[in-house]
Amino acid sequence: MTIPVLEIFGPTIQGEGMVIGQKTMFVRTAGCDYSCSWCDSKFTWDGSEKNNIRKMNAKEILDALIEEGGDRFGHVTISGGNPGLLPQLNNLVDLLHLHGVKVALETQGSKWQSWFTKINELTLSPKPPSSGMQTDFSVLDKIIESLSIEQKGTFSLKIVVFDDADLGYARKVHQRYPTVELFIQVGNDDLEKANEAELLAHLLERYEQLIDQVMADKELKHVRVLPQLHTYLWGNKRGV
Amino acid sequence: MTIPVLEIFGPTIQGEGMVIGQKTMFVRTAGCDYSCSWCDSKFTWDGSEKNNIRKMNAKEILDALIEEGGDRFGHVTISGGNPGLLPQLNNLVDLLHLHGVKVALETQGSKWQSWFTKINELTLSPKPPSSGMQTDFSVLDKIIESLSIEQKGTFSLKIVVFDDADLGYARKVHQRYPTVELFIQVGNDDLEKANEAELLAHLLERYEQLIDQVMADKELKHVRVLPQLHTYLWGNKRGV
Repeated sequence: MTIPVLEIFGPTIQGEGMVIGQKTMFVRTAGCDYSCSWCDSKFTWDGSEKNNIRKMNAKEILDALIEEGGDRFGHVTISGGNPGLLPQLNNLVDLLHLHGVKVALETQGSKWQSWFTKINELTLSPKPPSSGMQTDFSVLDKIIESLSIEQKGTFSLKIVVFDDADLGYARKVHQRYPTVELFIQVGNDDLEKANEAELLAHLLERYEQLIDQVMADKELKHVRVLPQLHTYLWGNKRGV
Repeated sequence: MTIPVLEIFGPTIQGEGMVIGQKTMFVRTAGCDYSCSWCDSKFTWDGSEKNNIRKMNAKEILDALIEEGGDRFGHVTISGGNPGLLPQLNNLVDLLHLHGVKVALETQGSKWQSWFTKINELTLSPKPPSSGMQTDFSVLDKIIESLSIEQKGTFSLKIVVFDDADLGYARKVHQRYPTVELFIQVGNDDLEKANEAELLAHLLERYEQLIDQVMADKELKHVRVLPQLHTYLWGNKRGV
């Protein structure tokens, strides 16, 4: 079974979450079971780039990674869409590990895959109310239970926050899984802005507001609050 | 034995290093065995705030933390100066753990303390050539060897980079300790600038340059490249 791929690029830095700053290559898969209102990668599921999807096997993806990144990488991040929909990623994870390459992956946690336990840094990012999506906590419970027993690498929760309802959702998730490291990420509510200086000022202001809220919150003690560094550096550009 | 303290503040976010974004309180101790040319906390060792040093025992520090942070924190970062000079910090670390508070600490790794093994997140930040300091690698070797055997939490290396010689130093440290996670941090070379927009543009430009260099470097595969987020948010202000 092949893997539907929309982007392969790098090395660059991971701009967010548990391995923020990590030197990594990116593989972006097509297809998602969600359609978040503020998704920053709508092209992976809205049909607009249907003709650009490459169906690749694990070996072809590794070759493409090496063509792009040469011998300058030792870490690959698989993102989407929702790569958690694809059982066939098992082969890619194994092949990368065989070549001494570590693998990070991000999924909303709406579906379990047995290969999750092999991921070196797994980010589960359930979506807050502003996304328009509903979290099936029975699925997320099972994923976190399985990972807590079997996970060889590390895993964390990441919640993007746009408003007070989202922060309430983050609080609820933190209470439900108090021992799992929680990253609260400030949402980018302006995916169209091309003026980078204005975007930057706006994003920093929102980051500072979110920090203020979390610092004042006694239920959110053991959390990390982070921006998306790539938007500070490169605005809303793709492929960096 | 009391602890010489210059600052207690928070909760705020940790702006750099292995727990970047972490909600934390800060305790800044006075005194350093180094005098780095670009130190951003010279007041801890240059005598300028000698009269502000409070000699506090562990209980007094905990009380001050609670007075400042109420019930809104579960994490404390001990910084300096070089807190690694102070054997008496053992009591503070134990007292914080007794209260369910996690402890992060940063030191250049010029002196071993047995309580290092209790620190939840220990950052060793040996100083590169631009600092004007010399690293005693025999001491750093022993610290890393001891931590590799005994450390209960996690530890990492962090190197601040201002120029090519510093990046060469980072490469050398990475080769010497290849299994220790390495954070490369962009140096803030403008500690005087008060115009935050100008400082921000300057720091982002330097961050992007450093990213470009590390991405092109095949010897620096398994590294993380990070800025100081607090300078993006609050410029060169103290106590945030």
